[in-house]
Amino acid sequence: MTVQIQPKKKAQNLSSLQRARLEYSPQYPSILEDVSILDFKPDGKISLDDEIAKIFPHLHTGVLESIVLGEPIDHPLKIGVVLSGGQAPGGHNVISGIFDACKKVHPDSELIGFLDGPKGIIDNQWCEITQDFLKVFRNQGGFDSIGSGRVKIESEEQLLSALRTVQEHKLDGLVIIGGDDSNTNAAFLSEFFLEHGCSTSVVGIPKTIDGDLQNQFIEISFGFDTACRTYSEIIGNLERDAISAKKYYYFIKLMGRAASHITLECALQTHPNLTFIGEELLKEHKSLWQVIQEIADLIVLRKKEGKEYGIILIPEGIIEFLSDVQLLISELNVLLHANEDLIQRQDRIERVEQLLSLSAASLFSSFPEKIQSQLLLDRDPHGNIQVSKIETERLLMQMTAKELEKRKQEGEWDGTFSPQAFFCGYEGRSALPSNFDCNYAYSLGRLACALIGRKKTGFIASILNLSQPVLAWKPVVVPLPCMMHFEARKGVMKAVIKKTLLDCDGKLFCEFLKNRTAWKLEDSYTQPGPIQFYGSSELTDKPVFTVQSKSVSSV
Amino acid sequence: MTVQIQPKKKAQNLSSLQRARLEYSPQYPSILEDVSILDFKPDGKISLDDEIAKIFPHLHTGVLESIVLGEPIDHPLKIGVVLSGGQAPGGHNVISGIFDACKKVHPDSELIGFLDGPKGIIDNQWCEITQDFLKVFRNQGGFDSIGSGRVKIESEEQLLSALRTVQEHKLDGLVIIGGDDSNTNAAFLSEFFLEHGCSTSVVGIPKTIDGDLQNQFIEISFGFDTACRTYSEIIGNLERDAISAKKYYYFIKLMGRAASHITLECALQTHPNLTFIGEELLKEHKSLWQVIQEIADLIVLRKKEGKEYGIILIPEGIIEFLSDVQLLISELNVLLHANEDLIQRQDRIERVEQLLSLSAASLFSSFPEKIQSQLLLDRDPHGNIQVSKIETERLLMQMTAKELEKRKQEGEWDGTFSPQAFFCGYEGRSALPSNFDCNYAYSLGRLACALIGRKKTGFIASILNLSQPVLAWKPVVVPLPCMMHFEARKGVMKAVIKKTLLDCDGKLFCEFLKNRTAWKLEDSYTQPGPIQFYGSSELTDKPVFTVQSKSVSSV
Repeated sequence: MTVQIQPKKKAQNLSSLQRARLEYSPQYPSILEDVSILDFKPDGKISLDDEIAKIFPHLHTGVLESIVLGEPIDHPLKIGVVLSGGQAPGGHNVISGIFDACKKVHPDSELIGFLDGPKGIIDNQWCEITQDFLKVFRNQGGFDSIGSGRVKIESEEQLLSALRTVQEHKLDGLVIIGGDDSNTNAAFLSEFFLEHGCSTSVVGIPKTIDGDLQNQFIEISFGFDTACRTYSEIIGNLERDAISAKKYYYFIKLMGRAASHITLECALQTHPNLTFIGEELLKEHKSLWQVIQEIADLIVLRKKEGKEYGIILIPEGIIEFLSDVQLLISELNVLLHANEDLIQRQDRIERVEQLLSLSAASLFSSFPEKIQSQLLLDRDPHGNIQVSKIETERLLMQMTAKELEKRKQEGEWDGTFSPQAFFCGYEGRSALPSNFDCNYAYSLGRLACALIGRKKTGFIASILNLSQPVLAWKPVVVPLPCMMHFEARKGVMKAVIKKTLLDCDGKLFCEFLKNRTAWKLEDSYTQPGPIQFYGSSELTDKPVFTVQSKSVSSV
Repeated sequence: MTVQIQPKKKAQNLSSLQRARLEYSPQYPSILEDVSILDFKPDGKISLDDEIAKIFPHLHTGVLESIVLGEPIDHPLKIGVVLSGGQAPGGHNVISGIFDACKKVHPDSELIGFLDGPKGIIDNQWCEITQDFLKVFRNQGGFDSIGSGRVKIESEEQLLSALRTVQEHKLDGLVIIGGDDSNTNAAFLSEFFLEHGCSTSVVGIPKTIDGDLQNQFIEISFGFDTACRTYSEIIGNLERDAISAKKYYYFIKLMGRAASHITLECALQTHPNLTFIGEELLKEHKSLWQVIQEIADLIVLRKKEGKEYGIILIPEGIIEFLSDVQLLISELNVLLHANEDLIQRQDRIERVEQLLSLSAASLFSSFPEKIQSQLLLDRDPHGNIQVSKIETERLLMQMTAKELEKRKQEGEWDGTFSPQAFFCGYEGRSALPSNFDCNYAYSLGRLACALIGRKKTGFIASILNLSQPVLAWKPVVVPLPCMMHFEARKGVMKAVIKKTLLDCDGKLFCEFLKNRTAWKLEDSYTQPGPIQFYGSSELTDKPVFTVQSKSVSSV
């Protein structure tokens, strides 16, 4: 059964800036002007794990394809698009890129949007995307045009439902806009379709603000630029406030899940006094105790210079990288599974302390009471501790206060510690996309349409040379399995697209290393200010450092 | 002893946008082009409380002065300037306005900045402000050029120190950039100077992001526009995120102390689902219990429409306006003063519940444990409860969760409640000033210089017609005592400049009233986006609604 749901017409509550952004014409490389004449031809091999290749017998996994000009397509295309997972600025531009490109191929081309994420494909909930529909979404933030969701198309049943849906719509192609997991699923879906004789192409688009979907084929996902700029605006403002009032330490946690890409990028933009990078802490086997020492050392040192203020950046995933916390969490998980009645007891905290190993108990008892309770009580459906629920920035503040109190008693420090917590998170996911993200996402949408026009399936659309002006951007298409490797997921080895953590030997991290000692005591704060859409191209079009640092990649 | 402290040269860590802003030329009304020819002549009377007039026998308190053209001043001026209290975007522009104007009066004019607030005047800590010094501060945020502080010049000893300082520097004038309290002190300082035969003019400048320094003479203080735009950017982004992910309720607290001006302004910019206005809650004798009911009602209602997300704005001062909280706090203060040993007891919470009146006890026991402890333990130096330390947004979240749990049990609601707390505060105080704040603050600085040139003292510089283009702005000068009234401060009646709370019969509030019912269920979210400095004047120069709503005032 086909259910067509027309979302309610969006009320005209647009701000002046939103209205102005509707008029913006995204730039794209000239080769994407007329996608009807774009074709793809094999162009060398890509190294690929044999075991991965075996999983995708129907896909052309080991061959790189390059873009060439071909005979024009002259028939209408029917394309479906879906947004998957967390918001990233630029999502609506991918959709408008697909729309404009397929309408140029043939005016009778059709685009439909599946509603509220991959669930919309499974349940066949969709809406038609028209010029009129897009009128209020071009160059806008958010994923509210068609919604998004975290349901995945993984089980046989879900895959079959998806197959039914695309066959019912007679789709030439399905574009999946998502992160590493969604693109992994896109690969399996394209294999499944071929296996079942379905000719619908599946094309992935790299989306995530976290920056962890990058590799030799993908310089950065769309959304990262806008999110980092939005957070850097806030951090720069807080720095300026810190150096003006001279009395607060701002503990700023930054979104980005496990990876610290966002944190590093923002540090390079704003020059805070102290920045923790999860991947570095892991590499050096640092403990939470050492992190607290480092913060307290900074505060003691700055106090000697007469400074009782500062800025500390903390990646969202920090806690998972710390050796002593890892030990505590794994002991707690075992303990709580083995003693189900423990958490009912009034004296649970004391009991847990007795049952833990000495070092785990020592860490646990150093936690503030609220965090202790939270660890024992908030568990996920599998009964595991939910580390991500810990408000790390507040934990660090409280533990630092305790450490400073100790140092005060020992006569090492005699100051005032006024910390303020801040979380740079949700406000960066649905911001108005920067010109860079508008252009990039729109170009990716056009490229996806080109792939579908030639019935290419199991590819991700990407663009290299992003640090150059748009006209020098180089669209590329990459078989999704090339980016996959085997990874343990819930105890089972699975083929997945690799999440890329920060490279502690990389160019950007080295740049950071060169400067961070100076940033500790000198207040080298930089205030990037709000994203500008108009004015000199230096202000409006240049992407963030992460992109600028990419050399011209040759695939 | 004169101590001249040259602040360390600011390192060149400016972002592209900061550098671009340095080049911006603030606009000002053409009458302020050459302040050397501006003079002031009496122009009618202002009604003034006799008792207030008696406090200021040396000031010309009851006479309005209008700006006229006079013989040019041709001697150098020596002016001191100080920043007082919390940061507000535009502070550096007041300083550059004074500087440019006095240098135009005579190239040998001198400007000095007192360091770290009024304390710098008392201790005679200062630095010379030169063209070179200002080079990195023009149109920038923060108060870090000369710092700020909250020490006040109030006691006889402090007043005498200030007198010594201005006499030692032979200052023609002292400009005090501050809020209601700082301008109150400016009035007393000018009276004190005259009383002691000192001819140094004291001139006030209306500064505060809170918007509570406004009256018939002052349309708005500088900084309010930028702060509201910075917060509205964030709120708009969170709204877009809420309607995209469809799973979070954002509880957003906004800075602004007691007054809800910022909250109302941001509500008008962004159209959230629910907005609390402290002044309205007070007027209607609302209790915290009623507030929680209103939030829970909203959530139940929206759930019926299939919506489990939303945006709730909460003014920083909300808790002080609620009748039941006021009762609880006053009972607790009495109780804790009378029973000093109470807080040492293990069973303090139970004991307190027994000792409170029934209704106060009922409220207290409905609080989460953490808040209960915080109320009993965090007390100010006078032993009073520190209401401002309560994290109101979290308190409301937790109490709402409890209420919803109750309703779930009663079968009234069956949903998921995922709240997220956000505080819009410090990041708005030191943002890069909007073009409006750049122009306004700079114009105020030029006007202050004109007052000093004519030895006018005890005045505040102001500008009317701010909703019009800059060329139609109307500079005015107002005797500070005209804005004063008597108010109980720590049990003693004092003459102070009146803080203006939000007017629940005013134009803006009525505009809000007209819309708020619709905003509850319809998602009329508006995303103002980041402040733009370049582009059409609609995007860059128009001030926020508060200013736009002012009719052309005639004083």
